[in-house]
Amino acid sequence: MTRSATVDTHRVWRLGADIDTDVLAPGAYMKLGIEGIAPHCLEALRPEFAREVRGGDVIAAGPGFGIGSSREQAAGALRHLGVSAVIAPSYSGLFFRNAYNLGLLLLTCPQAETLVEGDAVRLDLHTAGAPAVVAADGRRLACEPVPDFLLAMVNAGGLFNLLRQRIPSKTLETS
Amino acid sequence: MTRSATVDTHRVWRLGADIDTDVLAPGAYMKLGIEGIAPHCLEALRPEFAREVRGGDVIAAGPGFGIGSSREQAAGALRHLGVSAVIAPSYSGLFFRNAYNLGLLLLTCPQAETLVEGDAVRLDLHTAGAPAVVAADGRRLACEPVPDFLLAMVNAGGLFNLLRQRIPSKTLETS
Repeated sequence: MTRSATVDTHRVWRLGADIDTDVLAPGAYMKLGIEGIAPHCLEALRPEFAREVRGGDVIAAGPGFGIGSSREQAAGALRHLGVSAVIAPSYSGLFFRNAYNLGLLLLTCPQAETLVEGDAVRLDLHTAGAPAVVAADGRRLACEPVPDFLLAMVNAGGLFNLLRQRIPSKTLETS
Repeated sequence: MTRSATVDTHRVWRLGADIDTDVLAPGAYMKLGIEGIAPHCLEALRPEFAREVRGGDVIAAGPGFGIGSSREQAAGALRHLGVSAVIAPSYSGLFFRNAYNLGLLLLTCPQAETLVEGDAVRLDLHTAGAPAVVAADGRRLACEPVPDFLLAMVNAGGLFNLLRQRIPSKTLETS
């Protein structure tokens, strides 16, 4: 999805600040695996989300996205549902780490909260060192640079897939 | 250092909010390598820091620690100087990732700014799932949990050293 991000548009789901991991991956379903967790992603805030989200949609939220527990499924559920990116002013450090490891693009965007629910936005990841979200009204919202190694992880579908490309398979299977 | 963190005390350097990567690893010295960068770490804010910091000291700061560029040397300089941990309410996601990869412990601590310059604090990383900073006056400041895989990275001295322990050396040298 991110490969063609400069031409595709992405529908915005607009959330508030401090979206925590329990809202993203509710504790009650943690034993079910990602297929069982994802249908409940964000249901406490937006009951329709998991049912109506489409591959390529993005989430625009307030600061502190992904705070709470260390559960990797918080990022995994968004990825499983086909969310292309999260756009927020700041993230929990651990969520940021987990998300990229799982191939979920996070854009650190101070003006994320000016994006509008339901609007179609574009992601410009190709202007060297200066990624941006282009809002429906044409405004260009600057984001913090995303280093190449993190973009490579997103494009590969996560760290494990990237390592599979780069390290002989026998090593990963036996270590 | 972190292995004996429950018995050791750590002297506090108290900094403000939004300490950016250029203050940690000034751009003018980036070509010098970490030995050349580290002596200038934080010099714009605290000219005496690099000269007077001792191995085992910790930094307590405000939110947004490590914002700015993606330069890994920002965390590398602190580690090179022997800083045991940074204690702050929030971090740049990318700094958080880089720091743990380099074996620098970051504690996410909402009350970090109540710590006092020069005080001796203890780090309790051993109370399962509930790390804390114990202030000089005995207050126990709760921190977000640090998953075992991140503590393992700190104890190994960074991701590369951890991988060296776990993957046959030949693979890493050739990939």
